[in-house]
This record gives sequence, structure tokens and C-alpha cells, in this order.
Amino acid sequence: MPLKTPEEYIASIKARKPMDIWFRGEKITDPLEHPALKSSVETIKRIYELAHHPKFKEILTTKSHLTGEICNFYTAPLMSKEDAMQKSRLARSLAEILGCCTFRCTGSEAISGLYPTTYEIDKAKGTDYHERLKTWLKWVQTEDLTVTAALTDPKGDRKRKAHEQPDPDAFLRVVETRDDGIVIRGAKVNQTGIILANEVMIIPTTTVRENGKEYAVACAVPADAPGMKYVLGRWPVDLRVGQDEFESIDVGKKYGDHQAMLIVDDVFVPHERVFMCQDWEFTHDLMEFFTAVHRLTAGSCKSGGMSLLLGATKLAAESTNLAGVSHIQHKLGEIGIGAETLYALSLSAGVEGFKHESGAWIPNSLLAHSATYQATRFPFDAVRLAREIMAGIGETAPSAKDLLRSEIGPLLEKYLAPAKKGMTTEDRLRVMRLIENMGRGTNWTAMALHGGGNTEASRLMAIRHIDWDKLGKIAEVACGIEKDESKAADLISERLGKIDRGPDAFKR
Amino acid sequence: MPLKTPEEYIASIKARKPMDIWFRGEKITDPLEHPALKSSVETIKRIYELAHHPKFKEILTTKSHLTGEICNFYTAPLMSKEDAMQKSRLARSLAEILGCCTFRCTGSEAISGLYPTTYEIDKAKGTDYHERLKTWLKWVQTEDLTVTAALTDPKGDRKRKAHEQPDPDAFLRVVETRDDGIVIRGAKVNQTGIILANEVMIIPTTTVRENGKEYAVACAVPADAPGMKYVLGRWPVDLRVGQDEFESIDVGKKYGDHQAMLIVDDVFVPHERVFMCQDWEFTHDLMEFFTAVHRLTAGSCKSGGMSLLLGATKLAAESTNLAGVSHIQHKLGEIGIGAETLYALSLSAGVEGFKHESGAWIPNSLLAHSATYQATRFPFDAVRLAREIMAGIGETAPSAKDLLRSEIGPLLEKYLAPAKKGMTTEDRLRVMRLIENMGRGTNWTAMALHGGGNTEASRLMAIRHIDWDKLGKIAEVACGIEKDESKAADLISERLGKIDRGPDAFKR
Amino acid sequence: MPLKTPEEYIASIKARKPMDIWFRGEKITDPLEHPALKSSVETIKRIYELAHHPKFKEILTTKSHLTGEICNFYTAPLMSKEDAMQKSRLARSLAEILGCCTFRCTGSEAISGLYPTTYEIDKAKGTDYHERLKTWLKWVQTEDLTVTAALTDPKGDRKRKAHEQPDPDAFLRVVETRDDGIVIRGAKVNQTGIILANEVMIIPTTTVRENGKEYAVACAVPADAPGMKYVLGRWPVDLRVGQDEFESIDVGKKYGDHQAMLIVDDVFVPHERVFMCQDWEFTHDLMEFFTAVHRLTAGSCKSGGMSLLLGATKLAAESTNLAGVSHIQHKLGEIGIGAETLYALSLSAGVEGFKHESGAWIPNSLLAHSATYQATRFPFDAVRLAREIMAGIGETAPSAKDLLRSEIGPLLEKYLAPAKKGMTTEDRLRVMRLIENMGRGTNWTAMALHGGGNTEASRLMAIRHIDWDKLGKIAEVACGIEKDESKAADLISERLGKIDRGPDAFKR
Amino acid sequence: MPLKTPEEYIASIKARKPMDIWFRGEKITDPLEHPALKSSVETIKRIYELAHHPKFKEILTTKSHLTGEICNFYTAPLMSKEDAMQKSRLARSLAEILGCCTFRCTGSEAISGLYPTTYEIDKAKGTDYHERLKTWLKWVQTEDLTVTAALTDPKGDRKRKAHEQPDPDAFLRVVETRDDGIVIRGAKVNQTGIILANEVMIIPTTTVRENGKEYAVACAVPADAPGMKYVLGRWPVDLRVGQDEFESIDVGKKYGDHQAMLIVDDVFVPHERVFMCQDWEFTHDLMEFFTAVHRLTAGSCKSGGMSLLLGATKLAAESTNLAGVSHIQHKLGEIGIGAETLYALSLSAGVEGFKHESGAWIPNSLLAHSATYQATRFPFDAVRLAREIMAGIGETAPSAKDLLRSEIGPLLEKYLAPAKKGMTTEDRLRVMRLIENMGRGTNWTAMALHGGGNTEASRLMAIRHIDWDKLGKIAEVACGIEKDESKAADLISERLGKIDRGPDAFKR
Repeated sequence: MPLKTPEEYIASIKARKPMDIWFRGEKITDPLEHPALKSSVETIKRIYELAHHPKFKEILTTKSHLTGEICNFYTAPLMSKEDAMQKSRLARSLAEILGCCTFRCTGSEAISGLYPTTYEIDKAKGTDYHERLKTWLKWVQTEDLTVTAALTDPKGDRKRKAHEQPDPDAFLRVVETRDDGIVIRGAKVNQTGIILANEVMIIPTTTVRENGKEYAVACAVPADAPGMKYVLGRWPVDLRVGQDEFESIDVGKKYGDHQAMLIVDDVFVPHERVFMCQDWEFTHDLMEFFTAVHRLTAGSCKSGGMSLLLGATKLAAESTNLAGVSHIQHKLGEIGIGAETLYALSLSAGVEGFKHESGAWIPNSLLAHSATYQATRFPFDAVRLAREIMAGIGETAPSAKDLLRSEIGPLLEKYLAPAKKGMTTEDRLRVMRLIENMGRGTNWTAMALHGGGNTEASRLMAIRHIDWDKLGKIAEVACGIEKDESKAADLISERLGKIDRGPDAFKR
Repeated sequence: MPLKTPEEYIASIKARKPMDIWFRGEKITDPLEHPALKSSVETIKRIYELAHHPKFKEILTTKSHLTGEICNFYTAPLMSKEDAMQKSRLARSLAEILGCCTFRCTGSEAISGLYPTTYEIDKAKGTDYHERLKTWLKWVQTEDLTVTAALTDPKGDRKRKAHEQPDPDAFLRVVETRDDGIVIRGAKVNQTGIILANEVMIIPTTTVRENGKEYAVACAVPADAPGMKYVLGRWPVDLRVGQDEFESIDVGKKYGDHQAMLIVDDVFVPHERVFMCQDWEFTHDLMEFFTAVHRLTAGSCKSGGMSLLLGATKLAAESTNLAGVSHIQHKLGEIGIGAETLYALSLSAGVEGFKHESGAWIPNSLLAHSATYQATRFPFDAVRLAREIMAGIGETAPSAKDLLRSEIGPLLEKYLAPAKKGMTTEDRLRVMRLIENMGRGTNWTAMALHGGGNTEASRLMAIRHIDWDKLGKIAEVACGIEKDESKAADLISERLGKIDRGPDAFKR
Repeated sequence: MPLKTPEEYIASIKARKPMDIWFRGEKITDPLEHPALKSSVETIKRIYELAHHPKFKEILTTKSHLTGEICNFYTAPLMSKEDAMQKSRLARSLAEILGCCTFRCTGSEAISGLYPTTYEIDKAKGTDYHERLKTWLKWVQTEDLTVTAALTDPKGDRKRKAHEQPDPDAFLRVVETRDDGIVIRGAKVNQTGIILANEVMIIPTTTVRENGKEYAVACAVPADAPGMKYVLGRWPVDLRVGQDEFESIDVGKKYGDHQAMLIVDDVFVPHERVFMCQDWEFTHDLMEFFTAVHRLTAGSCKSGGMSLLLGATKLAAESTNLAGVSHIQHKLGEIGIGAETLYALSLSAGVEGFKHESGAWIPNSLLAHSATYQATRFPFDAVRLAREIMAGIGETAPSAKDLLRSEIGPLLEKYLAPAKKGMTTEDRLRVMRLIENMGRGTNWTAMALHGGGNTEASRLMAIRHIDWDKLGKIAEVACGIEKDESKAADLISERLGKIDRGPDAFKR
Repeated sequence: MPLKTPEEYIASIKARKPMDIWFRGEKITDPLEHPALKSSVETIKRIYELAHHPKFKEILTTKSHLTGEICNFYTAPLMSKEDAMQKSRLARSLAEILGCCTFRCTGSEAISGLYPTTYEIDKAKGTDYHERLKTWLKWVQTEDLTVTAALTDPKGDRKRKAHEQPDPDAFLRVVETRDDGIVIRGAKVNQTGIILANEVMIIPTTTVRENGKEYAVACAVPADAPGMKYVLGRWPVDLRVGQDEFESIDVGKKYGDHQAMLIVDDVFVPHERVFMCQDWEFTHDLMEFFTAVHRLTAGSCKSGGMSLLLGATKLAAESTNLAGVSHIQHKLGEIGIGAETLYALSLSAGVEGFKHESGAWIPNSLLAHSATYQATRFPFDAVRLAREIMAGIGETAPSAKDLLRSEIGPLLEKYLAPAKKGMTTEDRLRVMRLIENMGRGTNWTAMALHGGGNTEASRLMAIRHIDWDKLGKIAEVACGIEKDESKAADLISERLGKIDRGPDAFKR
């Protein structure tokens, strides 16, 4: 059955073998019941549920080019410009509902990156990675599994490459090759949603050269494979989550996520689940293809979060009757325009992509990196403005539970009564907590800053995709250093021709 | 003949009746020969020339839906999503070549705005504006005329509406209605390229209500109609333009533009050239349709200018051998990402538009206003960084003419020799002057700031197109004020449905 | 004895009558022992302790102009330019140690504002407020009491003035005047440190006119006076504070603060503790004098916090061996220069103040408001950069308690080992948590944004203190509208004369 | 006679030997009469005049510690904290009048830097530079000469040090040492005001080591010494300056400046005018002492310019009746607060300086570099806002000369009439031109960006003066890595002790 219900998904998680999960020095035995993961469970359930929503399913599902059946959009690689645009819209739409990560997104990006890469490797080396991937993918689609991508290595001394590290495991690597598979060792940090995954797709975090070929490994590992260990990370309001019902108001939002560190402690992976092994020459392609999709998504995902934050800020402004005031309008507009800007970068990255020989659609890298770059900055301005507008009380508000106490509740109702008709004091607290949640309490800003690559990583990759030769030449023509004017027109019109048509589109 | 050659265009300008054009207290008798307009003449000639360029013509021409013949892209309204995308790409591409205005762009935007508006008026009132417009348009396409849009009224006391001004002519208006046409009076400021236009399309600068209906007028006026008076405005390096050949190096760029004030001193316009007259109820539509196209263009046009500036900045960095230095890369990247961001907003505005009943394609307003908003800011950061990178000597460089003097030329060659192999001192001066030209010497930044609407105007219009109700509701659902979760999913998925499909797309 | 030891201060708090304090729906019976207040208790103890520090005491104490004895600096009004400079330096220095509020600061600012105001009222009306204040002040100095200022009313509908509110208590007011004193009612929000205060100095949050004269009230109330009720607000990591020793690492910092809402439920205040009662004509002066000192402090306090954050960020950069990398240096520099900028605004506000007739030193208002304005923005950029530099793991790090588990601790030590020699994994976690603490976990950014007045409030007040007439005139002279050039020189040199010399210095 | 009148200064310039000055390929024979230098002549005359102004003289003169007589402030080194504060105030005040450079400022900074440096060299090496300098200085003070500092070498390949350049003259150097003096060769770029100087003080632009000792040279050279050659640089509106009276309105401002390139073509300098020769060990001190004063000044100078620009912007807003509108107030406030911020950094740099053994007062370097850093950015935002507020017509306005033509003047008066009572159309044009002048037409922004060191140079030097060890330690204490808490308090209080007291104040 291609589209699981939330209940069927929960059953699949319950069916996992006992896992090694830690938090605050304690082992989490049942992740579905642990308070710290309560918001995350709600999120993933909602994702499964929306695929059955009469209208939402249009954007959350797609027809598999492998099976011809409808499958969850997150289990399929991008195969067309329309797919890329759907990804932008989907990421924005879900973020508007959840205000957090969807967990399934990164897995789909790893799939989108591996699909053309395995094709390339096979073509060059006669391997069968592409078929392996397709086989695994059909199963994932049919079972409607949640796959998260495990990318970011601990990296140790960041001035050294993987193979130069004092501890060779600072980047995940193949430590043994057997007849039936490989053994991998290492760790991956900042893994969003991973504790609720069915499958973990491990890919390298960087390109490597021949001297680091053991770091060139990509494979799919069941989340409950022996040797997979998880340490749940903290986020500011982690201890509020999963407390009693009224305290949940203080969390600010039903849906949430989590980040964990994955330790891969000598895990065996059978060959049919391995999609790259020591093929260092193709780590560059994988990084290009993966980040193009990943960073496209980072832009629209943060756009959606900004829309939700903007909605909350509007309510906050109404609660003090200031929504119509000029400087408030000014600031609301700033947030709104910022959201559109991120969305535009994401959408355009898809529109300006190209068709890979494998059939995959590769978004435009320059636009995708630019999307992430701006996504590391605009949400921060938005949060500052939202916090300014909700005023100091939004930052120092008492617990909603105080409203329940007869000694103090009525006084709070009196003094914190909103100026908006129909809005209760509890409502007002809810709005403030939503802004706190996205602005400080959870990792929404952390994902804006680091998810998909931080400011500097995005800038660096964007710089690489700028067509410097063309820019130098058009400037030389413009100022008369180059007298042959046709050079600029030719270059510019050639580039126009490239868009949508091939791998040269990497260069803008 | 649908596509004029530059020579044919020049002939059409020479064929204009003697016109009333002023500059620095003197009358300009031959605009084609006046030094201050030399750069402008080069620009418009190049525009005509590129329509014949083997590759460029693909983007600079289109097939007319009226005549079925190939015509210049700027003489046709946007009729499809692909047209809108072509406009973004065209605006960016030409700006990369010219680094200034194309003159013909605003005319095409007025056409794109009037096309659906006249359709609406006719439908509501049984008028024949739409046919008039099509008839005029076919002629414009066949003759390949340059049309500029005349929009911005002097506005007088900006706290008062048009009909409340002490001088009723502070906004252009109909002062007389005759059997054969109307007489209009007023002025339009900041008219780029207008002195070299064949036709001037006059449209209102703002919406009006019934009490200001005489201000609701749109019509096409030949540039040389009696009563049309022009006062050429100044720009910082205006007196350098058109000096001797070597001084032209100090201008920084062959192509340039001009802005003039148009005074409409009781000009008669026959009915067949009138496309709106006192139809105040439709000024809102016209503003919406026009600005959606106009501001889409403002984004990509400035994107192209930023690319050219970036090319020049790269050359400047090379001239001191600093191009590879980290902080320089950082700043070059900032400019480059800024350029992509403006382009993305522009392109997306086209992609997310909708098909109007008249057949016109209306770009997404929120994205278009956002494009202009960001276009009023990013170019300024780019200019500051470009100026920083070219270093102080770029701001205080001597005239290229000093290189020619035996007493001082060799010393300048010695002390200003660039560190880049193959680059001469003259080349270096050219690069600096190009940056000066775009950064300060001409109105490139002025058009970034005001063209298409300034920061505040764009923000204001963007705010109006944000779907505040939806945003409020999704926030209420997210924080639990609204318990019915389906409301958010419904609203969001409905909105997804709206995109591309109809006028509701005005609302995001 | 003028300078209490920490122990003596604790004794004074223990000696308070039982108080009405609430948190998360529960009553706090012993604030000195409650986990949520643990960091706050450490802070206030440290403040008392440092007054005995061989060097620190120089800056934390002063000679009272009332008693001639050494007293805590926070118990004395500013009486000289040197005092103002000491306040800037003290605020910065303590923030460098604590990274949070000192609690005693706002009280000193209320004192500094009331000192000249009461002098003015008495002079105009023959009242004896100034003597009352001095009497109370001598007692505060002798007892070395902690005084916090209670300023910010709930404000209800923010478009209405105090007396226009639906609930007249939305701003605190006098509800009854008796022979022996007054009864006040209302609430004050965002009260930092108030639960550990000895005395609460209540002052209005805004100017009022005659029709709102009951809101013009200033008085000192013992923290434990009957009717004083406190609701402790939440901050993101509030539940981590006061857990076991190892979890305290996850808080990030030993010192902390708290914000509470104070409800003044018909509290009686005897006349000798009342320093303004219905003297609405002087609320303007009080606001001016108070904010001048308060906002001067906001600048240097945030400057100190930024220094501490910068230190932590440097350590974070060292932990990945990236401290010397160009773009990291760039960002560290940005934070550092931001810190100096806030400090400079604060220090200058003191230097450019004037001597009031009462003997009080009034900082320059324009510079003080500018200090707060910039303090609402620079720390946010600093936090974003700090978070970027500590990398994603800084946002998703596991609890330090996981290090203690044999099953997982060694693996964490392996994979999170810092690249800096001598730094342990625990150290690295501590650094990340410090950044989290200041960036998200506590209210440091909240105080930057709202403490001392938010962005808009500061801008508004700054605008009022700009000498627009002078600026208009110098521009008229510069561009030749005004032909008499001496006007500009006279105006400018007159203004120079005003600085340091009198109340006209309000105008710059 | 210590204080020259403007006429006496002009006489001193006329008395110079014929000089080698070039502009646009032509030799300037009489700089006092050449159109391009007209604004500059007005400026320097005004500077001499204001020293006799009844009030201004207080700030523009000082009592010489060498002669005991009143001398121009710009001829004396800073000897006290009060001197430093006077410099900040003077720089701001003059900029408010002139909106451009004063020419005499940099000379005074070179003097302030050389005064303690020569003292140090003499002390270490037994030389007599300090006496030479004092002798020369007494003469300068008595004759009230204009001295400009010549600092910035062409630098060639900026990745190479002076002695590594392909052309050894890319940095100015000693090419011959004779019995009676030295011969120097090289060039200095971006020399503001130099063509109207009496004396040119040549100093190195960078520190050098022993292998580049010939570049370690400082000396005073008469502007008309044989071999001194000047090439006047261009600025955007250079050709408007000095045209007829009405066109001068289009310049925007009476006062202006100029930048020139100085070529030192084997110039002989007698020993008594040499203040450093091959003393490479002291180039670091000279750079530190010089930049501390120079960058302090850069901050307040730009602050004053921003005030003038703000005044003009206010008038522009009034001309359209928008001055009171919220978003305009917002933007005016932004400019105003920016101006105060630069001033505060400048003033504080002086306040937090220290007394050098020579008697000189050295401003605080970190604050001074921070001042310049912010001065490279705030004016750019201010200009953008000013240009936005004056609206598009401010950028495209016709020449004031058009007002004089009967054919077009009355129509311009009609359509450009300002909404402000009492303001004429000519006045409005003047205001717009003033904004254009400062924003684009002249080098005001160029000096903001490069004068005193560009963004990166300032950041780099600021970073060097941050006390990283202290910051690391206080962070370690705060987060518990360092358990001994006294370390932070000791370090912080020690640092407090350092301020004002000695050379350690270099470190903050």
C-alpha cells in the first residue's frame, strides 16, 4: 500500500528493534512516548495524515516514475521542473502548518542527489549502483517509509581534510569491506527527525580525493541497525515539551522537531544498500546534485516558517491594537517581503534547472545556494521584529498555568487582557509563545542558520557557480577595454540558451 | 516592416517635427547630435541592432498575437507565463550589456497594463478602448516604434490627493473634451529616454475616485505633438558625455540614458488614441496590472546591472591582485548573490502570475512589489562594496586625458600600473570609471531607488497583497487558538490551487 | 554599615515578610531556594561581593554626597560627569562578568531621575518631595539595599492613553488618598530581579496630562508590602536552572536573572515614601531625566554582554581551529566593533551631559536614546554570528550529562573532541551553552530589545532631541537658500557652547 | 603673526613658486583662479576666516604648548584629553558648515602622530628628530600654514610588501642620502586639498621592516618644492564647478574640496625637515599614533556631514509636505542616530586615550578604528535614505538655469513648486542639489569610504586592538571552564585601571 496512514506509520516505528537512544544521561526506551519527542511524533503523524487530505495530497504525493503508482512526494527524486516547483511549494506549505522540520525532506534530497550520481558512476565504471538505488527506492515508495539523510560529520579540526584528521573517524568512513557488504564507522551530527526515521541515508558531507577515498561512501541503513546509536540534542524549551496539557501552551506549538547525534559504531551494510563506495571521483557530483535540491528547499522551508511567524506577529500586534500603526506595518511588511524573497529564490532555482541524462531534474545551483545564503539571514531579522512587536511582555510572560490559579489567574486576566475583541488572555499567551517557540525556544532559527549550509558555506558555493569569465568580459566590453562588442552579446545570449538545457547551467 | 534597423529608427526620429527640448537654459535643436544625449542615442541604436543579432533576437522579439508576425518584444503585451519569464531574462540581459535603461521597457509595461484594463472597462461599460488599443498596437508593432510610458506626476503637496491640490494641474488631467478628442494638461517627471521616443503613453500615477475622475486618463501621444515640452534633467557626469574621444573614457561607458521632465501644455489627443478617459473605477486595475509588470522588470533589470557592476569589480580587484583574497571574495559573493536574489524575485513574479480573461498574463503582484523593494536596496550595498574594492584611487583618479601628456602621462603609467598582466593603466582607469558611472556618475542607482517605485511605495503595495487573513488563521491554528486544524491545511492548499489560475492570485 | 556582605544581604531577604510569588501555577515559598531563582541569587550575591573586591570596589562604590560615606554606587544619584562615566564603565564591566542584569541598576536610575525632578516640583509647588527622597536615600545607602525600578505598565490598548483605557488600572494609579498616605493599584510587567529586591521604586511609564493626573505617581514600596504580588515569567531554559550540578552546565552560565510581573493590588504607601503624587506637570521631566540615565546604561550594559559573547565565540572558533580564518576574523571583528559602538554611545551620553540645578548630572538625551536604539540591534547581529561560528553542533549538542554515561560518554568524547589543545569536550559544551544562554536561552537579547525601551521608543525619543531648526538652517546656508552665512556658524558655535553647560543640551 | 586672515593665506599661496599641476590633460597655471578649484578655494578661505569668528575661534584655535601663543588648532599636536575632544567637536562642526574636507585636518594628525614617535626614536637612538619637528612646528604655528599629510602610496601589487614590488617606487622611498638632506621618490594618491597647501607632510602608509627601511621616511616638504607634481583627480560634478553663477546652484554647495595625486619626482629634502629616515622600527608606532588621531577624526567629520545631509533631507521632506509622516520620521531618525553614533565613537576615542611620555595625548585605538569602520557604512545608508526622501525628481531635476528661460521657467515654477510656504522652486532645486552633492556629485561618500582607512583596514586594525586574552578568559570563567572566578574580576578591573593611564590602553 503506497500511502501509509499515521497509524500504519506508528506501527512501523513500533516494529523497529530496540534502539540505543540517549537524552540527558538517560536511555529513551520508547521514543513514541517520551515527553521530549512528543512534538516530533505529532509532526511526523501530521505529515502522513496530510498525504490523505483532499487537497493537500496533490502537493504531497506524486506519480512514481519507477512504479507508476502514486507515492509520497518525499520518496521520489525530482524528475522535472514541475517536480522542483512542487518541492518549493510543498516545503513552504508544510512549514506554514508545522513551523518546523518535516523530517522526510532531507531523505528525498539525498535520493535526488544519488539518482543522477549513481547513474554517472555506473556509466563511467560499469557498476550497478543505479539499479540498487532504484530497487531500494521502489521498496521505500511502496512501504511509504520515512528516510532521513545523514550528512554532517563532526569534522574535528576544520582546517584539515578528512584523511588528515588526528582521529580518522572524525569523518564517517568504510573501515572494512566484506564479501556481503561493508562496515562503516563515524558519526553524524545535527540529525533532524532521525529518531523517528525508518531508514537513514548516509552520504558524505564533503568532496574527497583519492587519498580520502574511504570517506566516499553512501548507503541506506535501517534506523534500528545494530551499532546505530543516537544522542538526542537539547533545545531551549525541551523540558517544557510533553508536560501537562496546560504547560504545552508554554511550548507555543503542537508540532516540533528534534536534532540528534548519530553514532555509527561499526555498522554492517549489505552491498545492495550501498550506492557509492570509495568512488571519490563522484563525491563532487553528489555534493552538487544534493546541495542543489537541499538548498532550494532550505529557502522555501524558511519562507513558510516566516509566513507563520508573520501571522503570529500580526496577531500580537492586534492584541495591543497596534496592527495598523505605520511603523508596525513597516515591520510586518519587512517580514512578509523577506518570506517572498526566500520563496522566489527557491522557486527560481527549480525553474532554472536542467535535465540530467539520468532523467533527474537538477535545480540551478547558484540560485539554490543564494536561497540558503539569504535563508541564514532574513529569518533573524524577522524574529527580531516579531519579538519587538509582541513587546517585552511576550518575552517575560508567566506560564499559562498561572491563569488556572484562583489567587492569581483573575489578576492576570485583568492585566494582560488583549485589546482585540474576541481574543482571550490565554489566546494572547499562545501567540506570544508561538513567537518565542520559533524565535528562541526551538531550533527553527538554528535550522535557518545551519540547515542546508551556513552563511559562509552557501556564499562559498554560490561564488563557485558565478560565471566570472563572462562577468569580466561583459565589463571589459562595457567600459571599452574590449572593443569587439559582439563578445558581450554573444556570451549573454549563449548563457540564455544554456538555461534549462544542460549541465553548463551550473555556470550562470 | 516589423523590425527596424538602427538606421531606420534614426530616420524615424529625424522625421519628427521640431520639438521643444531644453537643457541648462538652452534649447536642444537636434537631440541626435547633442552631446548630453550621445550615450542615449547609442543605447537606443543598440536596442534596435540587437533585435537582429543571431541569438539575441530570440529574446528581443516575439510573435505578435495580433498580427501573427515577429515583432519587437517591447511592442507586445505579456500574454503567457513564458512571455513574463522572457521579460525577466531580457531585462537582465540588456542591463548586462548596457548598464542603463533601455527606454522601450516602460512602454511595453503600460501596454501590458492597459491591455487587460481596457478589456475590463469595455466589458463593464460597453466602450471600445480595447479595440482602439489593439489598433494602435498593431501600428506600433508594424512600425517597430519606441514607446515610453509617462507616469509620474509632480504631485505637489504629497499629503493631498490629485483633486485636492492647490494647483489642479499638479497631476495630469483632462481639461477639455471635444468631439474629436480630448485636451490634457499637466507634467510627468523622471521620464527616462523620452526625448528619443516615437510615442509617449500617458497613464495615471495613482488610483483616483469619482471626485478626481478627470485625472483618470490614459492615451498615446506622439512625442512631437504640439504642446509637448521637454526639460532634460541633469546627472552627475552629464558634462563629460559627448566631449572628445579620450574624455569619453572618463564617462565610463558608451551606453547611457537620460531623464527628462515632460510638460504637457494643453495637448490635444484624438479619441482613437485615448484608452481611458474619466473611468476612475478602473484606475485601480490599471495600477495593479501595470505595476505587476513594471516591478517584475525593475527586479531583473537591476539584477543585470549588478552583474555588470560585479564584472567590473572583479576586474578592479584583479588590478590590485586582490581578487582571490578572502574578504574580497566575500564581498564579490555578496554582490553576486544580491543579483541572483533580484532576478529570482522577478522570474518568480512571472511564474506565479495568472491568465486574465483578456488573454493577458498578469505577474504575481506580491512577488513583483517585493522585487522592486529589494531592488531599492541591494544595488546600494553592491555599489558601496564595488567602490571599496576599487580603492580610493578609483574615486580620485585623474582624467584619462592626462595619460596623453608627455609631461605627466609616463609618470601616471608608472604609478598607476595595474598588477594584472595584460591590463594597461588606461584599462584600469576604464574599469574605475565604469564603477563610478554605475555607482555615482549616472542615474543607475537613482533608477534602482525610484524606478518602478521607491522603497516605501513597494513595501506599501506588497503589504496590501499579503493575505493577512490566511496568515492570522494559520498562526491561530499553530498555537492552538483555533482548535480545528483542518482550517490551516484547507487555506494553504486552496491557495496553492489559486496560483496560476486566476485573479485571486493577487492575494498570497 | 554601608556595604553589606552577600551574607548580610541574604539575611535582609530572609527577613522579608512572607510574599505572594507564583511560578508555573505554584506558589514559591522560599525564593532563595527555588530552582528557577538559583541563578538570580548567585547574581545578586556576586554584586554585593564585588563591592568588597580590592579593585572592583573602586567602580562599584562611591562617596555619598548625602552622608559623606562610601556607599554602593547603585544607591546614589549621578552627581557629576565622572559619575556618569563610572556608570557606563560599571555597567559594561559587570555585564562582562555576569552576562545578565544586575538588578540594582534600574533602581539607581529611578533615583537619578527623581532627584532633579523632586527638586523641580518642590521649587515650583513648595512641596517637600526632595527632602523625603533624600531621607529615604540616606537609609537605602546606609542599609545598602537593593532597589529595583518598576516602570512598565501593561498599557492595555496601546492606542489609548492611560485615562482612556477601558480598564483604568491598565496603568498604575492612585486610587485613594488618605491622611497618612496613598493607595495605589495596577501592575508592572517585565520587572527584572524584582523578586530579590528590598525596595521597589514605582514610577510612571509615560508622561500624563491633567486628565490623567492619578497616573502621575512615584513612590518607594518595600518588596514585601501587603498587596504586592509577583508572577515569575518564563524564559526558554528556565527548567534547566537549578537542576543537578551537571545539568547546570547545560544552562551555560552560573549567573542569571529573572523577570516577573508585579501586581500592585491596592497597596498602601505612607506619604514619606511618596515622591510624586498627581504632579502630572513633572512627568515629562521625570521621563527625560530617568531615560537619559537608563538608556545610557542600556548601551554599555549590552556592550559588556557583547564582549562576553565575543569571548565565548572566540573560544568556539578555537574549538574547531578556525579562529584565525579570514571570514571568522571578519565576524569576530564585527561583534567587537559593535560592542565598542554601544559603549561609545553610552560613555558619550555621560560626557556630553549637563549639571542640573539640583546638583544632579543629566546625561545627554540624544546620545542616550541613540545608545539604546543601537543596543536593540547590534546584539542580534552578534548572536547570529556567534551561533554561526559555533556551528550547528552548538545548537543541537547533547546534555553534558550524557558525558557521564559509560555507554555513550566515551563516544561523545571521541566525536566532539575539540581541536584546541587543552580544551576538553566538556569545556566545548560549556562554551556552546554559554552562547546558547546569551543568544537564546535566557533574556539577554530580550533585554537588549526591550530593556530601556525598544527600537521604536528609542528612535522616537531620539528624534525629539534632534535640533531640527538648527539642521534646517545649516542646510539652508550650505545650499545658498540663506545667504547670511554667519547664521550657520553662529548656530553651530552656540550649540558647542551649550554642551556641558545647561538644560539646552537636551537639544543637539 | 599667529592667525592669518583669508587674504593673508591667499597671499601665501600666490607667493608659491610656479607649480606643476594638471587636470584633464591641461596644465593649471593659477590654482586660485581655475574653475575646478573654485569650491576648494572657498573652503580654505572659510577655514581661515572662522578662526576669527567671535565664537568659532574658541574651537578652531588653541594655546601652543611650544610658543605659549594662540595658534590655529590644526597646527598643534593633541596634548590632552580636552584637545582630543576639541578635535572631535571641531571636525563635526566644520563638516556641518562645509560638508566637505577642511584640508588642514590631516596635517594636524600627522603632527600628532610624529610628535610622540620622534620622541620615541630620539630616546632610543639619540637622534634629534623631536627637536627638528618642534622647530618646524613653531614656524608653522607662527606662520599659520596649511599642512596636508601625504600618506597613501599607489601600492602596486597589493599582495606584496613595499620592497617586494616590481617597481620599487610603488611606495615612496629615500633614493639618495646626501650630507645636507635626502632625495625621495614615489607618489601619493587621494590627496585631499593638497593643491592649496603650503606644506606637505609625507609619512609612510604602512609599517615596514628592516628589509624595507628606505620606505621608512617622514618629512615636511613645501608644496612648491622642485619635483613635486600634482594631477588633479575628477569627481562626478567637477565640470559644473566654477561655471556661471546660476550653474553653481547645480553644484549644490559653495564649499568643496579636491583630491589630487602627488608625484614626488626625486625631491630633495634638507635634514632639518626630515623627521624619520630609515627608522623602520618606529613605523609601527607612527602608524598607531597617527591612525588613532586620524580615525577619531574620520568619525566625527562624517558625523557632521551626516548632520548637514539630515538638515537638507528635512527640507526636502518639507518641500513635499511629508516631513511629519511616520515612515519619513523613521528614516530621518535613522540618519540622525547614525550621526550621533559616529560622533560618540570619535568623542570616546579621545576620552579613553592616554598620556604619552612626550606629553602627547593618544586616543584609544580600538574606539578610533571602530569610528572609522562605522563611518564607512552609516553615511551610505544616510545617502540612500536622503535620496529616497527627496524623491525621483531630486535625481533628475533640470538645471536651475532653465528657470531663467521665459519659454520654460514659468512652467517649471508651476510644476515644481514646493508645498512648503516660503520655499521657492529655486530653493527646492538647491536642496536637491545639496543632497546630490553629498550623495553622489562630490567625494563626500568617497572620503567616508576610504578617508581614514576603508572598511576592511579599519576592521583589521580594530581586531588587533581587541584584548582577546581577556575576552577568552572572562568567557571561560562565565561558563565554568575556569573555576577561579577572581580571574575575570581581576582582569576586568585591571583594564578599568588602565584606561587613561598608559600605553596598555591600546589593548581593550
